[in-house]
Amino acid sequence: MTLPESKDLTHLFSDETRARKPSPLKTCIHLFNDPNIIFLGGGLPMSDYFPWDNLSVDSPIPPFTKGIGASIDSRNNDILKAELKKNEKLHDGDIPLARALQYGFSAGQPELMNFLREHTTIIHNMQYKDWDVVATTGNTNAWESTLRVFCNRGDVILAEAHSFSSSLAAAQAQGVITFPVPIDEHGIIPSKLAQILDNWTEGAPKPKLLYTIPTGQNPTGSSLSDERKEEIYEIAQKHDFIIIEDEPYYFLQVGRYIKDLGERAKLETDVRPTHEKFLQSLAKTFLSIDTEGRVIRMDSFSKVLAPGTRLGWITGSKRLLKAYISLHEMTIQAPAGFTQAMVSSTLNKWGQSGYLDWLICLRHEYLLKRNHAIDCLFKYIPDTSIFTINPPIAGMFFTVNIDASAHPEFKTKFDSDPTKVEQHIYDTVISNGVLVVPGIWFITDGETTPAQPKESKEISNPNIVFFRGTFAAVAPEKLENGIKRFADVLKKEFALN
Amino acid sequence: MTLPESKDLTHLFSDETRARKPSPLKTCIHLFNDPNIIFLGGGLPMSDYFPWDNLSVDSPIPPFTKGIGASIDSRNNDILKAELKKNEKLHDGDIPLARALQYGFSAGQPELMNFLREHTTIIHNMQYKDWDVVATTGNTNAWESTLRVFCNRGDVILAEAHSFSSSLAAAQAQGVITFPVPIDEHGIIPSKLAQILDNWTEGAPKPKLLYTIPTGQNPTGSSLSDERKEEIYEIAQKHDFIIIEDEPYYFLQVGRYIKDLGERAKLETDVRPTHEKFLQSLAKTFLSIDTEGRVIRMDSFSKVLAPGTRLGWITGSKRLLKAYISLHEMTIQAPAGFTQAMVSSTLNKWGQSGYLDWLICLRHEYLLKRNHAIDCLFKYIPDTSIFTINPPIAGMFFTVNIDASAHPEFKTKFDSDPTKVEQHIYDTVISNGVLVVPGIWFITDGETTPAQPKESKEISNPNIVFFRGTFAAVAPEKLENGIKRFADVLKKEFALN
Repeated sequence: MTLPESKDLTHLFSDETRARKPSPLKTCIHLFNDPNIIFLGGGLPMSDYFPWDNLSVDSPIPPFTKGIGASIDSRNNDILKAELKKNEKLHDGDIPLARALQYGFSAGQPELMNFLREHTTIIHNMQYKDWDVVATTGNTNAWESTLRVFCNRGDVILAEAHSFSSSLAAAQAQGVITFPVPIDEHGIIPSKLAQILDNWTEGAPKPKLLYTIPTGQNPTGSSLSDERKEEIYEIAQKHDFIIIEDEPYYFLQVGRYIKDLGERAKLETDVRPTHEKFLQSLAKTFLSIDTEGRVIRMDSFSKVLAPGTRLGWITGSKRLLKAYISLHEMTIQAPAGFTQAMVSSTLNKWGQSGYLDWLICLRHEYLLKRNHAIDCLFKYIPDTSIFTINPPIAGMFFTVNIDASAHPEFKTKFDSDPTKVEQHIYDTVISNGVLVVPGIWFITDGETTPAQPKESKEISNPNIVFFRGTFAAVAPEKLENGIKRFADVLKKEFALN
Repeated sequence: MTLPESKDLTHLFSDETRARKPSPLKTCIHLFNDPNIIFLGGGLPMSDYFPWDNLSVDSPIPPFTKGIGASIDSRNNDILKAELKKNEKLHDGDIPLARALQYGFSAGQPELMNFLREHTTIIHNMQYKDWDVVATTGNTNAWESTLRVFCNRGDVILAEAHSFSSSLAAAQAQGVITFPVPIDEHGIIPSKLAQILDNWTEGAPKPKLLYTIPTGQNPTGSSLSDERKEEIYEIAQKHDFIIIEDEPYYFLQVGRYIKDLGERAKLETDVRPTHEKFLQSLAKTFLSIDTEGRVIRMDSFSKVLAPGTRLGWITGSKRLLKAYISLHEMTIQAPAGFTQAMVSSTLNKWGQSGYLDWLICLRHEYLLKRNHAIDCLFKYIPDTSIFTINPPIAGMFFTVNIDASAHPEFKTKFDSDPTKVEQHIYDTVISNGVLVVPGIWFITDGETTPAQPKESKEISNPNIVFFRGTFAAVAPEKLENGIKRFADVLKKEFALN
């Protein structure tokens, strides 16, 4: 079957993108590697003067039989050494340092990008021909760049009613209005989204983008179901907006929480599924159902390798990616060469299969962490209708809803204002030695109305606030201790001792 | 003597900077390293799952007795190995990988920033108290961010009449108007700058920034004299704008070109000046005369270590740097951890003294390159009033002015249009196997009027065009061959065979 070309959606570009002229110097930089041309064109220092050579780094070897958390020094023969030379390749996937540390390749170094293209075809069933990948310095920058690429001051975008505060703040600073879309435990509610758009004020500029974190959403921990993705994509086609899927937690899909330990043991024997089973278990992506190049996916190594790589990539139609490359040429130029070189060597030596092994092992770690966190929440937080524990099926975050009106001093000390209770609990948990963060930090419209994380009974109750915790950052005992401290504060505050 | 505090210049911030709220999540990230707090606050993956450990890289050892261009493998004992562990420091200046590869430290990792603060006090005579440094991903991004920090659409900035095209393009894309300031071989002409500002249209918004590349300016190769810097600073105070000094070539100050080989030999015996002499030889910086925090200096490792580090830093008043940190938290977060770790280890092991050795050796290499390039230009380009060779005293670039009206087909084939001659020469040099770039690419006002790189007799001659070449990118024989090819084209085009 021949795949179609992407649709031309460049009418959604910002004024800035339209005005951006490609730097004339970039039109000739390819001549640097042309053997027939003596390059006196640009200020590229000779690699002779780069002070580094013989870079090497250890990583574990697939299939990671000792798991992924063990220290390198405890691994004996289970160590893979990536070695990088300045002027030669010891392995196909290596980027020689002389090139990695030079200017050029704004879209990313070929060895790394080829790995990512192959990875893309393994994970996503691409439905159009002219897609590609472009290297980024992670999703934070990729999102801020996305706003620059598409939005003018005063433009409107759609986002989950609670969303990642830094992403919302980036839009706000640029003068872009974020319009909240109601969500429940399965993410965006398509009927509500359709309703918003069908009733959009006539003449008002329509939203250009839908910003969504489909998997393990930040902060609610919810995950968007496959069926809803199809529905939302159709709405995007009808109302001509682009879907930005921000997927840092995509591979942390740990499945439904099972409280009963017996049942859990039965279902979770499959610690090491085959690659095929693993791939089948993953949620359908917006990218996989995109026939028009209407989806831009932002992937990051931050949550699966390390945040400090400051390395990620976007996938989308070449027509749209072009604008990112032009922007990058004036901003980041490209992710740092050391990072690209090291990640490329490691991943290419692991191979696609080894990288899947890594992701499978990592997911298993997060499964254990998620289970432990939710077990502890149920163990320590009193079983009362005041508190609702929301176990996620993916990602790093859990939330606990709290009925602020049940606080004994709600009407007196807190003037019947749930946000005052929320702030008080936040201050109190910190002074009791644990940090969880208040839902109010994540409200999309920026108003200080009470948090409504769920399209459920709570939505009609403005007194529900919530806190977001993560099971990512600390080891099991510490996690349990932290949750206990949090629960102790709740018990004391709500007089449940 | 007690130094004064910086002046409050935050009234020059852009609407975007004013609207930018600090991400609430960043207000609590410092608790991650607080031993009394169990951190369930942010999505920080545990460093146990970072796949890398035992990173090592070779660099030469100060004082670089074998020079800086020799390969590592030829150095025998002259090799320094920087070794980085995940969870320990082998040297004070090391950043353990567990921290380097984690979120946090938006302003840069402490070990690196301390080195840069110390370096700053060695190079610049800081005149106010509350200055600091912030890590960047290089000057391209630092400049684009500077525009975001200060400028709204429609704002005006000042720049050298010919300036780095990518910098101009960044401003243009953001809707910022660049106003050209006349320059000659000593850079910006203060009297012309004063005249422009004293006659600024009443009521029109005044320029917020002066963007300048004081040393080895791109593209003209000119360098701003110390006296002019003082005068320009006073104008900045009078008209309340900020000076952005973009100084990637600052340490490539090779001095006056001496054509006579005998005289040259006499004057250039001092291949290895003492650190004191080296420091004395450097141009005064805007930073050194800044008593108010009115200067933001952009430094980069691109030209002194390697472009692919994607690492640089800005120096300025803490009041102004704050806005960059807030912006970085929504964009780059911080330079990549691998880069910070590797540069910090290398520089801290070299020490301040070793880094000065490196810069001294590097400058010497560029001195040889500059001399060779200019020697070749004088050797191959016919000695006629049609061509003017402009030897730079710093940086990577030389320029050759050409009187386009002397072209035999000026009036016929080129319709008396010098830009047509310029384009024709550009195309012809490329097809003859050498790349030099036309001055027209660098015109600040973006108009396609003829290039006027010098406030000299040429300025009254609209038929003067120029080409920029670099002696940075290729080895000596290739450089000579390239210049010969360029000269051959000029001879043939202007019928001087």
